[in-house]
Amino acid sequence: MHSNAVQHLTRMGLIETDAGMIEASCQGWRGERGNALFLARPRSMDELSEIVRTCVRNNIRLIPQSARTGLVGASVPDSSGQQAIVSLERLTSRFECDRVNRSLTCSAGLHLSEVNARLKPDGLCLPIDLGADPCIGGMIATNTGGARLIRHGDVRRHVLELSVILGDAGGTIVKLGTPLRKNATGPDWKHMFIGTGAAFGIIGECTLSVERAPSHRAAALVPLPDESVLPEFLLQLEERFGSLVSAIEFMSANAMRAAYAHTPSLKRPFGHEIPEMTVLVELSCDWPLAAGDRPLDDILLNGLCALWEETDGKIGAGVFGRAEEIWAIRHAVSEGVRRRGRLYAFDLAFRRSDTLRFRSIMSGRLSTQYPEIEICDFGHVGDGGLHFNLIDHLPATEWTRDREQAIRDLVIHAAVKEFGGSFSAEHGIGPINQHYLDAFSDAFQTSFARAFEAVTSRQNFGRVHYSGSKHE
Amino acid sequence: MHSNAVQHLTRMGLIETDAGMIEASCQGWRGERGNALFLARPRSMDELSEIVRTCVRNNIRLIPQSARTGLVGASVPDSSGQQAIVSLERLTSRFECDRVNRSLTCSAGLHLSEVNARLKPDGLCLPIDLGADPCIGGMIATNTGGARLIRHGDVRRHVLELSVILGDAGGTIVKLGTPLRKNATGPDWKHMFIGTGAAFGIIGECTLSVERAPSHRAAALVPLPDESVLPEFLLQLEERFGSLVSAIEFMSANAMRAAYAHTPSLKRPFGHEIPEMTVLVELSCDWPLAAGDRPLDDILLNGLCALWEETDGKIGAGVFGRAEEIWAIRHAVSEGVRRRGRLYAFDLAFRRSDTLRFRSIMSGRLSTQYPEIEICDFGHVGDGGLHFNLIDHLPATEWTRDREQAIRDLVIHAAVKEFGGSFSAEHGIGPINQHYLDAFSDAFQTSFARAFEAVTSRQNFGRVHYSGSKHE
Repeated sequence: MHSNAVQHLTRMGLIETDAGMIEASCQGWRGERGNALFLARPRSMDELSEIVRTCVRNNIRLIPQSARTGLVGASVPDSSGQQAIVSLERLTSRFECDRVNRSLTCSAGLHLSEVNARLKPDGLCLPIDLGADPCIGGMIATNTGGARLIRHGDVRRHVLELSVILGDAGGTIVKLGTPLRKNATGPDWKHMFIGTGAAFGIIGECTLSVERAPSHRAAALVPLPDESVLPEFLLQLEERFGSLVSAIEFMSANAMRAAYAHTPSLKRPFGHEIPEMTVLVELSCDWPLAAGDRPLDDILLNGLCALWEETDGKIGAGVFGRAEEIWAIRHAVSEGVRRRGRLYAFDLAFRRSDTLRFRSIMSGRLSTQYPEIEICDFGHVGDGGLHFNLIDHLPATEWTRDREQAIRDLVIHAAVKEFGGSFSAEHGIGPINQHYLDAFSDAFQTSFARAFEAVTSRQNFGRVHYSGSKHE
Repeated sequence: MHSNAVQHLTRMGLIETDAGMIEASCQGWRGERGNALFLARPRSMDELSEIVRTCVRNNIRLIPQSARTGLVGASVPDSSGQQAIVSLERLTSRFECDRVNRSLTCSAGLHLSEVNARLKPDGLCLPIDLGADPCIGGMIATNTGGARLIRHGDVRRHVLELSVILGDAGGTIVKLGTPLRKNATGPDWKHMFIGTGAAFGIIGECTLSVERAPSHRAAALVPLPDESVLPEFLLQLEERFGSLVSAIEFMSANAMRAAYAHTPSLKRPFGHEIPEMTVLVELSCDWPLAAGDRPLDDILLNGLCALWEETDGKIGAGVFGRAEEIWAIRHAVSEGVRRRGRLYAFDLAFRRSDTLRFRSIMSGRLSTQYPEIEICDFGHVGDGGLHFNLIDHLPATEWTRDREQAIRDLVIHAAVKEFGGSFSAEHGIGPINQHYLDAFSDAFQTSFARAFEAVTSRQNFGRVHYSGSKHE
């Protein structure tokens, strides 16, 4: 069966033969490795449909892949060599900006950076802010969040319409949604294909609502005296600046030190006395300010000074600077932390009042039970997001898989069971966290998924199973 | 079977006996009338579940009803007398505002006005702007849009979590979603219960993301010389004012005249020379302006004056005034139009470039084919929404149901088939437009709905069927 499919797709020129490219496609961002039966690279919706049809009929599980920037292994095949990869990289031909409708219809294989570069001349953007540069298809399949969700929302909020290839024997292309901003005609099925990792269908094209690009930004770094003030700080920021706020990001001292160690050229607004907890506050607007208008820098400075006075110097003092320089520190954190040692990365979310409370309680538990663990955390506290990343300094010779799993379970169970948090705030589901999905999904979610799988597909795509029924 | 159910629910004190109240519950906003087997009014989630369980076991179709402000007949029972009503009006006990999380957990029976009154002391609001005062449950079931969608989005955007009663034999209560702002753990099933008119389950409680209440507003009425300038006007408004724009509303001269005729006390900024087409532009912000900050009125005035100069007086001239007085005219339009004569109401949506183009083309066709028709339209052109309302001045003695249907079909088919528009932009689906749903749903949507119905329910709720399989 498999060789028939390979022959057929080879004849159609859809199978990649470049060994380096195949090799690369079997590697994930965090070092996951798999083996692929083949790598197919369609250039059109029809070719994508043909690949799907062929694989479904020949019972080949297909792993959709876009920019391979995902962090949960969802786009990497398993080690069996029996799964095939379909890459969306060459699916880039469509880019139609409807300026009046403020919407963009485009192919799933376009990178976020390219989309924004091409929207720029019209003063528009897709305002999802990430460290990585994913493709649009992967962003929708993951429902990516990012650092400016507090203002702009997630990817889901921007999706108006999807063209999806179902895993049926016909590789059927279905359109879900409309390019309209208002449409209340019953179930909005596109939501089942957003944030579900392509399990129910592969996203080939989409229409997105885009926004005016920001015209002005201002940013400041504000140290927190302790975690208990964060809730009041969030309230004060929103009361003083309302929806001018476009980001409220948290960095621990350890995370900032890791950023500086990895990128020594970064500005050091605090010198070498890095505060234990720092919050990056950004204001921005998307309209032009007139000559006499107060600059956002002044609005931010005045607001924080007023807060400082009202709290008797408890909170509000901070450092101001060019927004790009301040963001450069924040953006260097991820890579810095990754280079610091053996990393256990967590992508958690909480109610906003719980984020740093979780951190405080969990720090205590970890320091008692696992003194070799260093907490290098940071996150999107404006949305309750916390990348509670841990570095394990235990010597490599003493490390065990069981130890790592025990630490992961400790953190995740506390986050989900004690705090009602999420074990995957914005990274989605993949082999790396499938078992947590299984552990925390209720019977109804599983039965809904089973029903929806049955009606969309003869076969599902990707590495994840929401139905609990067909684990790899 | 039915009498057993009635006896059981009567014993539990859940059946309303007040004849006036029963009578009222059988009437819809636009005069639809039905007959109810009984009216049940639960005060808690448990009572609601008990009612559902009893009805499902006794094969009684249950019609959920909240404030009866819907415009498509979805909450009115049919004429058989075999359908029972479950009213959410007394389901009001929960109201928990989490200020730090900027979220509200509340019962489905609370009215929008009450929710906003209770959020006000905390400076918060649910920014869905409507003429009517619906209940939260009905708003979610309809995915209500409204006049400020361009800034704040629809109800869906604000729903974090739902508690839903399924139509299974247990009347099972399921929670869907979380109170978190970030959560990427697979299918977000709550979306299947938003905008689906309770077909798959009855919404009993929810957690909503709420926003800072606006601190300042400015509004102007700007006449358009003709419909062709609207696209450029939308672009200019967003370029000059960005996301300060909170509403762009359209009123035809006929619609404005109808408003004045019904409410003579309204301000008359144009005197008696009402422009053929007027756009209401609103700016607003949710942060406090400082003493030296330019008021929004000035920003709006200066921006429109600059536009006027740049277009050689073609567009941008307008009248300014207190935002409340300007909105009073807009809000009087619906009721004014309704009193003008026999109304064929349409709730359409288009790509923003198509809205007034549709209007122009359809006006021509109607004036030729149906000269007795007066077009009294208005709508949310910032989102492509158009209430293309028609008044039929044909003498009542000559009116026929066939004529009305022919006119309705003419308008809807052009909107959907020629313009790719929506036949229900924000009013949802009910008996009044079920046949258009059937006509325009594709086989996949129908099969998805059938699968989802099967897994959520032994019985569906309400008047609508998305599965095409079980029409009343």
